[in-house]
Amino acid sequence: MQKRDRLHIWTEQGNVTISQLFFSHYKAINVKDEEAILLLHLIAFGEAGNRFPTPQNLVERTHFNENKVVNILQRLVQKGLVQIEQHIDSNGVRFEYYAFQNLWNLLLNCVEEEENSVEEEHSKTEEG
Amino acid sequence: MQKRDRLHIWTEQGNVTISQLFFSHYKAINVKDEEAILLLHLIAFGEAGNRFPTPQNLVERTHFNENKVVNILQRLVQKGLVQIEQHIDSNGVRFEYYAFQNLWNLLLNCVEEEENSVEEEHSKTEEG
Amino acid sequence: MQKRDRLHIWTEQGNVTISQLFFSHYKAINVKDEEAILLLHLIAFGEAGNRFPTPQNLVERTHFNENKVVNILQRLVQKGLVQIEQHIDSNGVRFEYYAFQNLWNLLLNCVEEEENSVEEEHSKTEEG
Amino acid sequence: MQKRDRLHIWTEQGNVTISQLFFSHYKAINVKDEEAILLLHLIAFGEAGNRFPTPQNLVERTHFNENKVVNILQRLVQKGLVQIEQHIDSNGVRFEYYAFQNLWNLLLNCVEEEENSVEEEHSKTEEG
Repeated sequence: MQKRDRLHIWTEQGNVTISQLFFSHYKAINVKDEEAILLLHLIAFGEAGNRFPTPQNLVERTHFNENKVVNILQRLVQKGLVQIEQHIDSNGVRFEYYAFQNLWNLLLNCVEEEENSVEEEHSKTEEG
Repeated sequence: MQKRDRLHIWTEQGNVTISQLFFSHYKAINVKDEEAILLLHLIAFGEAGNRFPTPQNLVERTHFNENKVVNILQRLVQKGLVQIEQHIDSNGVRFEYYAFQNLWNLLLNCVEEEENSVEEEHSKTEEG
Repeated sequence: MQKRDRLHIWTEQGNVTISQLFFSHYKAINVKDEEAILLLHLIAFGEAGNRFPTPQNLVERTHFNENKVVNILQRLVQKGLVQIEQHIDSNGVRFEYYAFQNLWNLLLNCVEEEENSVEEEHSKTEEG
Repeated sequence: MQKRDRLHIWTEQGNVTISQLFFSHYKAINVKDEEAILLLHLIAFGEAGNRFPTPQNLVERTHFNENKVVNILQRLVQKGLVQIEQHIDSNGVRFEYYAFQNLWNLLLNCVEEEENSVEEEHSKTEEG
């Protein structure tokens, strides 16, 4: 195997793309920092093709032990920030994956509320 | 102000793009989870045009208090994961920004070492 | 000025992030290939902070001459794929920018129609 | 099947992430606009998991006919902008894929040359 140059290694890793909305508003929807980092790992795994990483996968990438990972995952599901959904592929095999639709909706609700309250402020000032 | 639809709000937020390398290897270069989330916030601010967010900016987006943020930032600088660099713009104004070049290099070193050790394994097996 | 390594140059360039939807469906909404490449340039300029590149900016990055660029831009606006919007910044300065909201909506309409027709197929088969 | 909202459809599409370097410098390395759009399609397919799209795949997404697509692909390979590489997976199955390493290197060479000539200008001015 020929040694590859560093740029080659870099560009082959692939990227994770996350809305700025996540970073600017996760606190506002009551996501803790340790939940945020785990969510980001779930998203990163998903973008790399593994949409249902195991607790062990997450233990390998973080400093959390398995109990802690399972505990955070349960909280994420209970809070409705992550859904475990099922899909049946073309061979009839059932598989599960983490879905983040509700998370995106909660973040957007937050921005909408901010925009509405800014608008109300404006209205008050104009009416004043 | 007309109310904008949700897709409009979503697409206007912009994105943060981060190498998969960060998520797969930050633990291996001894970055703690709380350092990881702060690094991600620094990168997110940078991509949105604010390359030198204040501790207060970071307090607003996380559950850390200002002492904690300053403490983590200092550790990141001491460990060489973040550099504070200076630039003089075209108007002669000096400004500072966070640079992550060393972080990317450390992550890449990690992958190179892994590839080398895999290669050595192969060599041993073949020679064996 | 110290010579920077290649990885440093690479990571400093920044990225352009575009929905897969654009590549998979621009043809279906009747966007020509030369319009597609110009749209991508507009988006790339926008993500780098220049939300209203001039025809000359676009001439420098493509093999089109200025007439051709102006001609394609006009078509994009006429087809409603790009809007020229105005904004007044905090100093009262008016500026213009290209907006792509309508483009995203047209692409989404396309996917929705596809999903609906798939659903109708299913209904027919089940009823059949 | 329940009808999904538009944001859901949007976020499920996934993204394509491309270095700004591509847009700013493809012309400088003598890539034509029609070659650029085809390269972008190859990259988009690759990021969606199809690293060796057929000419027919590309015909479906562009206004080029199959002859034209094959013709552009051949030029991209001849110019060394795209490599067709082979890989053998863990089941011993050989598969091919398009690689862009040379393209990234050519774009970087371009930036390096620009930086060098700027530096020489500075040196001359200072010496002058």
